[in-house]
Amino acid sequence: MYSLGELAETLGVHLDGDPEVRVTGLSTLALAGPQQLSFLSNSKYLAQLERTHAAAVILRPEQAGQCPVACLLSDNPYLTFARATALFAGEARPPAGVHPSAVVAFDASIHGEAAVGPNAVIESGATLGAGVIVGANVTIGADCHVGAGTRLHPGVVLGRGVRLGEHCTIHSNAVLGADGFGFAPSASGWQKIHQLGGVRIGDRVEVGACTTIDRGALEDTVVEDGAIIDNLVQIAHNCHIGKNTAIAGCTGLAGSTIIGANCTLAGGVGVVGHVEICDNVHITGMTMVTKSITEPGSYSSGTPMSSTRDWKRSAVRFAQLDSIQKRLAELEKRQPK
Amino acid sequence: MYSLGELAETLGVHLDGDPEVRVTGLSTLALAGPQQLSFLSNSKYLAQLERTHAAAVILRPEQAGQCPVACLLSDNPYLTFARATALFAGEARPPAGVHPSAVVAFDASIHGEAAVGPNAVIESGATLGAGVIVGANVTIGADCHVGAGTRLHPGVVLGRGVRLGEHCTIHSNAVLGADGFGFAPSASGWQKIHQLGGVRIGDRVEVGACTTIDRGALEDTVVEDGAIIDNLVQIAHNCHIGKNTAIAGCTGLAGSTIIGANCTLAGGVGVVGHVEICDNVHITGMTMVTKSITEPGSYSSGTPMSSTRDWKRSAVRFAQLDSIQKRLAELEKRQPK
Amino acid sequence: MYSLGELAETLGVHLDGDPEVRVTGLSTLALAGPQQLSFLSNSKYLAQLERTHAAAVILRPEQAGQCPVACLLSDNPYLTFARATALFAGEARPPAGVHPSAVVAFDASIHGEAAVGPNAVIESGATLGAGVIVGANVTIGADCHVGAGTRLHPGVVLGRGVRLGEHCTIHSNAVLGADGFGFAPSASGWQKIHQLGGVRIGDRVEVGACTTIDRGALEDTVVEDGAIIDNLVQIAHNCHIGKNTAIAGCTGLAGSTIIGANCTLAGGVGVVGHVEICDNVHITGMTMVTKSITEPGSYSSGTPMSSTRDWKRSAVRFAQLDSIQKRLAELEKRQPK
Repeated sequence: MYSLGELAETLGVHLDGDPEVRVTGLSTLALAGPQQLSFLSNSKYLAQLERTHAAAVILRPEQAGQCPVACLLSDNPYLTFARATALFAGEARPPAGVHPSAVVAFDASIHGEAAVGPNAVIESGATLGAGVIVGANVTIGADCHVGAGTRLHPGVVLGRGVRLGEHCTIHSNAVLGADGFGFAPSASGWQKIHQLGGVRIGDRVEVGACTTIDRGALEDTVVEDGAIIDNLVQIAHNCHIGKNTAIAGCTGLAGSTIIGANCTLAGGVGVVGHVEICDNVHITGMTMVTKSITEPGSYSSGTPMSSTRDWKRSAVRFAQLDSIQKRLAELEKRQPK
Repeated sequence: MYSLGELAETLGVHLDGDPEVRVTGLSTLALAGPQQLSFLSNSKYLAQLERTHAAAVILRPEQAGQCPVACLLSDNPYLTFARATALFAGEARPPAGVHPSAVVAFDASIHGEAAVGPNAVIESGATLGAGVIVGANVTIGADCHVGAGTRLHPGVVLGRGVRLGEHCTIHSNAVLGADGFGFAPSASGWQKIHQLGGVRIGDRVEVGACTTIDRGALEDTVVEDGAIIDNLVQIAHNCHIGKNTAIAGCTGLAGSTIIGANCTLAGGVGVVGHVEICDNVHITGMTMVTKSITEPGSYSSGTPMSSTRDWKRSAVRFAQLDSIQKRLAELEKRQPK
Repeated sequence: MYSLGELAETLGVHLDGDPEVRVTGLSTLALAGPQQLSFLSNSKYLAQLERTHAAAVILRPEQAGQCPVACLLSDNPYLTFARATALFAGEARPPAGVHPSAVVAFDASIHGEAAVGPNAVIESGATLGAGVIVGANVTIGADCHVGAGTRLHPGVVLGRGVRLGEHCTIHSNAVLGADGFGFAPSASGWQKIHQLGGVRIGDRVEVGACTTIDRGALEDTVVEDGAIIDNLVQIAHNCHIGKNTAIAGCTGLAGSTIIGANCTLAGGVGVVGHVEICDNVHITGMTMVTKSITEPGSYSSGTPMSSTRDWKRSAVRFAQLDSIQKRLAELEKRQPK
């Protein structure tokens, strides 16, 4: 619980209201009660602002006049709101130390301020930095390194030799460091290419639940500082994800894909292997990226949704597009000039 | 093992045949042997009916004349078959009690008739109702509630505070209650929005293996009673899935998607965030839903499969569609009226 | 560490160079140092060959003249390289025996040369062959069979009665044997069809991380010898995957799909249920397979990526395709013959 005065000071914003009022949590403008803080970042919610029962609202100075309650004035209310969520985050920090049910190899090195949860397994030669939190039933393979302040939620698996930077968050059942999908055809079937590279993750990276990041074939698979990756994303061997790039759920990257910095891939995108996407590219949802992208901007593929009846008509014609174009060219040829 | 007479009584249908014949299991019409029960719900299998060696067949009364063996007469053979599968289900119910290798917080509350499997971890303040089954290596976070009769298969992770109703089934390695993918952009990169909402699941909900249902940002992510969700489905923060809605594998819902009751989403569907789908909507496989749907019915997107050679021709023309339309309009303009 | 002479002998290829030179690992032509082996299989890297600092290069005899260092001559350099990776594979083989923290049912049968890792759980009646490796936190359900030489990486879950052949590799958090997604509609909602079939996996099958292979409804779901399956793939109940077929990441197969031998499905493919794909079919990435395929060859669907601005123009016209075709037909009708 915080007073509005404490909040203003912690968030570095100006308070217009009673600093003694106490706030127990955050909520939306529509649902917030008199002990909750809310925010306005999108002006389409102005009508809700005027009716809010929140204790206070984070908003831009020019909107303060329309606010019926106390204001926390910010030039970037969404960012100030994001910072405020950290103050009310519900997840308790487990006490430092290794739970007696965890199995830790004798030659693993665990910082005295790290916390290792029940039934976690830490294999030979792994090192955990200060403030690392390892959830229940996590497995950390041999020779992994987990940087200071990084949290592994329950069920995460790190294969051997995975290197995680500092202050990362890896969500439950994500798998970092499984073998890349590399096989050579032979007369007797597929010959496995043993994956000798590793996985290297920078600082402040977030990896979603059930996301998979494979180890490289010869060199490492790399995710740079500040990248954020959602749930159920597949990152194949030898991909390289640039700094602060965001990848939404159900996206799949084939092997050796290189993605620049500050890109955003919406959900369900697929990228073929061995292509390169430059910095500052946005890819819309479910796009199939089949070639390199060398210019910043927004890219798309797919067809729009319609009723299945209408869609079937268009879909039939799609298969006739080449003949439609030829018929059109034929008509054009016959036109008088 | 059941006699046909017992089966007829238990399933509430009429038997036309010897009630003493004993049945050990279920099989298809083509493969069933003389100790197995089968069913006919689709008339395209009538030819198989005539040659079946099953002990008995569940079918509609009007099809009984073509059945060479005993009949269990039902107006809805598929539903009667579904009920019969419960009688032959192979999975043993583990004995009540907590396995000695499980780690249970001192202040967790576990009903005396719940069963907690080996190496499961149950954190502080969690409550488990009567008849709950917790599989091996499951992790239940702090303050979760699992309703009576719900089963969590091995490897499931519930984040803190997840609330599950009664008689749900959560398949292995599903993750309920990981953080939603919420970040605010800032000059120094992505600022995490701590996800303060929870996950609330109704009664009789089924969640598939490796499916992820994220906790809400401020309010809860909600799945209503009787919804069924397949494997590898992503349900983002603050989604709301209506009663009895079915979602097939590899589907992804972006944040704050609202789906009504009695909808069916086929596999691989993607739904953008902040849209609303009304009740009784069907979405065909791999459709990209980019806007709200306000009328019941079936919706689609995508293009039909063809040989890669033919497809390439159509795909090239797709990118020329606007110019094709313009050329067509030009020709039309030149036509004599 | 191997000498070049040992490598030539082990790989069955001819060495052109000093057999005493010692090699510590593998790398790419561009990055290999004087103690590393490299390979050339694609002639587009010939320029790198001429500048390589590798100890030796695996290449075709006709390319030896351009190689500045020792050569290992092979008619199939990629396959020879694949075999070489096995010699340098980093993953240690754990010692045989059951880790004291593992929980093994009294009536499970574990070969003396199998290795069961920390906190693994092996349920009643399961049998593990010689050389089986069970990683940390794995769960093996009742009555499973794991063939000799098969490795289950940490976090894998096998449901009851799953049968795995010999020398398979199952990557972390994959789930084999969860219930198929089978429900019958009823007036009171979905009636679960208990899934009574099993999962049967052949020899030398690889299954990726977080991939799900569901048990069959009445008969088994089957994956034949030598098939390779990438991460985050969904294989529904009663699918049948043929010998040596390869399925890339994020692909989903609906129920009862039958795929022949030697097929390759690229990433993100979706296949509707109850279709059959013959042998030797290739499906390109993100294709929606909506019908059976009876001729070998390559198949595709989807639309090409472009800038979002250009794509929006094409997408609008896609929905008008039927009317475009009708307008074209009208113009054609008016043409003088």
